[in-house]
Amino acid sequence: MDERLKGQLQFLHEADKMKNVFRQTIIADKSREENDAEHSWHFALMAMTLAEYAGIDGVDINRVIQMAILHDMVEIYAGDTFAYDTKGYETKEKRENEAADKLFSLLPAEQGARYRGLWEEFDRMETPDAVYASAIDRLHPFFMNYLTDGHTWVKHGVSADMIYERMAPVKAALPALWEFIEYVVRDSRAKGYIK
Amino acid sequence: MDERLKGQLQFLHEADKMKNVFRQTIIADKSREENDAEHSWHFALMAMTLAEYAGIDGVDINRVIQMAILHDMVEIYAGDTFAYDTKGYETKEKRENEAADKLFSLLPAEQGARYRGLWEEFDRMETPDAVYASAIDRLHPFFMNYLTDGHTWVKHGVSADMIYERMAPVKAALPALWEFIEYVVRDSRAKGYIK
Repeated sequence: MDERLKGQLQFLHEADKMKNVFRQTIIADKSREENDAEHSWHFALMAMTLAEYAGIDGVDINRVIQMAILHDMVEIYAGDTFAYDTKGYETKEKRENEAADKLFSLLPAEQGARYRGLWEEFDRMETPDAVYASAIDRLHPFFMNYLTDGHTWVKHGVSADMIYERMAPVKAALPALWEFIEYVVRDSRAKGYIK
Repeated sequence: MDERLKGQLQFLHEADKMKNVFRQTIIADKSREENDAEHSWHFALMAMTLAEYAGIDGVDINRVIQMAILHDMVEIYAGDTFAYDTKGYETKEKRENEAADKLFSLLPAEQGARYRGLWEEFDRMETPDAVYASAIDRLHPFFMNYLTDGHTWVKHGVSADMIYERMAPVKAALPALWEFIEYVVRDSRAKGYIK
């Protein structure tokens, strides 16, 4: 078989491991943890469904969706780093860069570089697409936590301040959603999900 | 909260159920069945990664990716219909249309109509985007079956003829993949995965 296609099929095979990278968040029926493939799909759907609320100019929703599909793939090798795990964040960059070297090199060079570029752009949170995408990437687990009685907030003793800090990008990227964020935090405090 | 946003958040909440719609295919490590959220993500990734092999003119890969994200959502209510389940196919259209009425009406009217339109276009397999998308939708479980020792082929006694018939759209939509299809069928016969 053509080497180019062979590498792409190997990449698509390796991608299957996303279905076994588990996150801290649980799915809405509370039966089990959510995995990265599911999160990436739900993130893409959320990004496209809420696109009209983008509060920054120049967001290309199709690039955002491609970012959503690719943004966690380095976790196949680097594992998921929980949002409030400060120790994990110290080594996150190194672990993820090594993972990116390994993963994207399965692809033909220019395609691997394009995918890696989208992931790095997402991670740097500087361009309009990356700012909008990372706001959705934070909104998604926030939403899931609220649907599951504050599952990871309770488990890790997360405070309202920590949540507001984590959710700050949403204020700029989707200002119309901020009222919802505040409502959820208020309601979650009243219900004892957060400190 | 604004009624429009409220409906969109309800839709995104309902979407979580895709993580509990299980398919006949199993994931590559053979530990369990794959669900619709995972399949939709993997389908989107496969569609974008193999886009260069599109053998038909006018494929807009970004529309295909949006189709991939939405294409199975009616199964939240209608359930998954196995590719070779002829009895299930008799009621599939009715079940899925009723599901679409229920699901897409959660969204603001014009957005619900756009999503439903993409799903219907996919399902009719007439436009270049829909032809390419449904070829990938067939290629994905074919690929997963090969990675899992022909799991559903063995389970349901699927023959090479049935597979070639099911995979026919790939020949037109991704002609460069046909050699791979033939190789897999040949190898799977030799290994006893298919009759």
